[in-house]
Amino acid sequence: MPLCLDEIVERLGGQLAGDGKTVVSRIATLDGAAPGDLSFLANPKYRSQLAKTRASAVIVPAEAAAECPTAAILTPQPYLYFARVAQWLHAPVKPPAGVHPTAVILSAVPASASIGANTYVDDDVAIGDDVVIGANCSLGRGCRIGAGSRLHAGVAIYAGCVIGDRAIIHSGAVIGADGFGFAREDDGAWLKIPQTGRVVIGDDVEIGANTTIDRGAIDDTIIETGVKLDNQIQIAHNVRIGAHTAIAGCVGIAGSTRIGRRCTVGGAAMIIGHLTIADDVSISSGTLVTKSIAQAGTYTGSVPFLEHGQWLRNFSRLRHLDAMADRIRVLEARLADLEKKT
Amino acid sequence: MPLCLDEIVERLGGQLAGDGKTVVSRIATLDGAAPGDLSFLANPKYRSQLAKTRASAVIVPAEAAAECPTAAILTPQPYLYFARVAQWLHAPVKPPAGVHPTAVILSAVPASASIGANTYVDDDVAIGDDVVIGANCSLGRGCRIGAGSRLHAGVAIYAGCVIGDRAIIHSGAVIGADGFGFAREDDGAWLKIPQTGRVVIGDDVEIGANTTIDRGAIDDTIIETGVKLDNQIQIAHNVRIGAHTAIAGCVGIAGSTRIGRRCTVGGAAMIIGHLTIADDVSISSGTLVTKSIAQAGTYTGSVPFLEHGQWLRNFSRLRHLDAMADRIRVLEARLADLEKKT
Amino acid sequence: MPLCLDEIVERLGGQLAGDGKTVVSRIATLDGAAPGDLSFLANPKYRSQLAKTRASAVIVPAEAAAECPTAAILTPQPYLYFARVAQWLHAPVKPPAGVHPTAVILSAVPASASIGANTYVDDDVAIGDDVVIGANCSLGRGCRIGAGSRLHAGVAIYAGCVIGDRAIIHSGAVIGADGFGFAREDDGAWLKIPQTGRVVIGDDVEIGANTTIDRGAIDDTIIETGVKLDNQIQIAHNVRIGAHTAIAGCVGIAGSTRIGRRCTVGGAAMIIGHLTIADDVSISSGTLVTKSIAQAGTYTGSVPFLEHGQWLRNFSRLRHLDAMADRIRVLEARLADLEKKT
Repeated sequence: MPLCLDEIVERLGGQLAGDGKTVVSRIATLDGAAPGDLSFLANPKYRSQLAKTRASAVIVPAEAAAECPTAAILTPQPYLYFARVAQWLHAPVKPPAGVHPTAVILSAVPASASIGANTYVDDDVAIGDDVVIGANCSLGRGCRIGAGSRLHAGVAIYAGCVIGDRAIIHSGAVIGADGFGFAREDDGAWLKIPQTGRVVIGDDVEIGANTTIDRGAIDDTIIETGVKLDNQIQIAHNVRIGAHTAIAGCVGIAGSTRIGRRCTVGGAAMIIGHLTIADDVSISSGTLVTKSIAQAGTYTGSVPFLEHGQWLRNFSRLRHLDAMADRIRVLEARLADLEKKT
Repeated sequence: MPLCLDEIVERLGGQLAGDGKTVVSRIATLDGAAPGDLSFLANPKYRSQLAKTRASAVIVPAEAAAECPTAAILTPQPYLYFARVAQWLHAPVKPPAGVHPTAVILSAVPASASIGANTYVDDDVAIGDDVVIGANCSLGRGCRIGAGSRLHAGVAIYAGCVIGDRAIIHSGAVIGADGFGFAREDDGAWLKIPQTGRVVIGDDVEIGANTTIDRGAIDDTIIETGVKLDNQIQIAHNVRIGAHTAIAGCVGIAGSTRIGRRCTVGGAAMIIGHLTIADDVSISSGTLVTKSIAQAGTYTGSVPFLEHGQWLRNFSRLRHLDAMADRIRVLEARLADLEKKT
Repeated sequence: MPLCLDEIVERLGGQLAGDGKTVVSRIATLDGAAPGDLSFLANPKYRSQLAKTRASAVIVPAEAAAECPTAAILTPQPYLYFARVAQWLHAPVKPPAGVHPTAVILSAVPASASIGANTYVDDDVAIGDDVVIGANCSLGRGCRIGAGSRLHAGVAIYAGCVIGDRAIIHSGAVIGADGFGFAREDDGAWLKIPQTGRVVIGDDVEIGANTTIDRGAIDDTIIETGVKLDNQIQIAHNVRIGAHTAIAGCVGIAGSTRIGRRCTVGGAAMIIGHLTIADDVSISSGTLVTKSIAQAGTYTGSVPFLEHGQWLRNFSRLRHLDAMADRIRVLEARLADLEKKT
């Protein structure tokens, strides 16, 4: 779907520089662009690539306009603008509506929905308009999928879970498996606590491939509106994640922890259970969060890496840090003593 | 299935306080309970909620009986008691026995088993009585599923693997994929070692969503009776996990490591290969275990997190810890020297 | 398929010691071997098991020949030799060619390929000769699977992705889900960036169970020839992994990072985004890599674990490491002062 810059600016705003009849039909990086492509400059690091780009047009901040060799759209937020154009140029391909003959469907499906091959939908499931469900999915009894949501192939949703509107759920995601709840018998054996809560997910949530969100033990696990979850994330029972929080891949969040709104959690961070994290908190990659966080801000707890020999020399000291601190204290006392004497 | 307290006490023991005819039909938290609900007080942290609960009855330790505003069951182990009642009140819904017409089954299935839509069972598979297999599962040639086991939708079991009785396996779990075994060629390329062992799993094991357990390289990977595995756990080839060990989400256990009985492993811990961990060891969340552990006890190896600026100031010192130790040693020598002189 | 040692040595080289007519039909460890088995001594740690092995023959280095109680094949690289024999003795069982009647296939399938039950292949998919696809897989529009590749049950490949020849992809792997790319709106909401790149995978790549590889944002995510990926690995958009690099389980690699050739990455390591790692780099288990690495070598950044009480005493000092360094500096100044005076 080719667009000309005039059309784009008319719909999305920004200031045109150059020929508004310039036609673009694809997005591209500055470096990888070819004629017919629309590129963008968002990260100043790539500014040197601007002069050499082969794109037909570039979205740039006003201060870079002079260096832009092509037609341009000027905007203070080039990345956000680029996202809007990209969504327009590359709208997701929607498969034709209808239920594939190999799907096994025990619930009503609206005419606008599309259900893929070999997918199983149990009874009492509510499927919204324009929902797209890929192949080999499985939807448990009584769950709900909001209008406009898309489940890619191989998603499993357990009974009773609720997905809001316009969700995107990637392959291998599992929503609503039992939380990890056991009571211990005297002999050390574990007795399962039935997990009777649900997973309740708001609107505009995206869930990455092979991410798992467990159902609540008694109350629900809740993912609020606009939350974005990357791949391979584990969210335990009774967690609550506030609106517009974004969590990168390989993160684990243990049971009953509440995370605020507009937080970001870096890859492979781990948040233990029963904590409360305030709004607007940013957790750095690889950080283990073991205490609640009451103040917005950035929090970090990872260690630097070193060449292996250097690492051995330095990190083995960690076992003796307490002794080092004691030796400093003793030195201070002895030195003070000596200073008094002389 | 409503129960009255008399019935519960008759079957599960404990001491009744209040009206034994009180009827309960659901479990609930103290805070979330409504009339008709049975709640419990296990964690002293929630004691203040007891007076205000709307539950019809509460399971409490004897010392909290006086504060309980409702009928009560007194027991020294309220959480364990609660687990038993919860299992009774919320027994898993068993789908009707039979093989769904879209399932592809090349082995004998007992009349009491239930096989879901679009599931594939290869030949020579032994399926026990009362087994429930969800939709879109795949069971490789010659594997065995013990009586009363339940596989949720989308579980994959490779050829030859053995699952004990009463297993619960959640969606996306993969049992018996090849272990990661390669020999290196002179040019750096990797030559695959065929993984000819199996995965052998005892009775009463629960396996979380998207957890993976690799088959042995030559001998078997073994998960003993009563082991509980949370979601997104990776268990490599030839690992052995002792009975009643419980492992939280996102843990990785590398090849040939043996973990004792009744151990607990916290979320996102990682245990490297070829180690031996004793019985009754507890590994804290986020700990990297790089040596065998011969003694029961709790072991930890994570770092505290800090506000980012503080973290930068403190953790950058880790690169110079060895130099710090040297400077302390020099200070001690110089000071001793000076002390001798004065 | 029983083989005699003469046949093996004729095909794979090495020097025969003992009876070349000795027949072996299975591989085994020294300890677990029975008559008819072929074992090997690669790790000197197991040398003491050699004298007692019940194997019919053993692959050994020349220096261990004298201790070998059985027929032997002498080679300087016993593990590599073992891998070659093991591949011969335990060649993967190939299911019969043909498309299962329950599979839904919208593309041409060569006669030599085997497509499992309930698998879905969208249109415009190119499937090479001798490809084996298990049950419940899903292949998106326009993807390509190279000759001789094997997809185990439950693999999902998104539209447009390219898999080379002789790939092995384990159950639950997801290739080509959207990368985690969003622009932030002024109110904190996230606007999705369409992910228009692909995943392009070279020849002889193995991908573990539940591993995820995201499609590129604009350009492609690239996995070069001979790369081996263990289970539960997350590879973000626009990553490039060099030929013959091997990555252990639970590793995460964030967006746009480039990893060199012949690298090894230990389990649960995490590499943040936009880095460049040189060829022949080895990253230790549990290391968080936050800077590019320009030199071949081994790099580590994990902390030791301790008994919990010891850990508390030592690791709490990390919060005060900067203050400790200051105190050392002050001590040095005061001591120098005092030394001058006396």
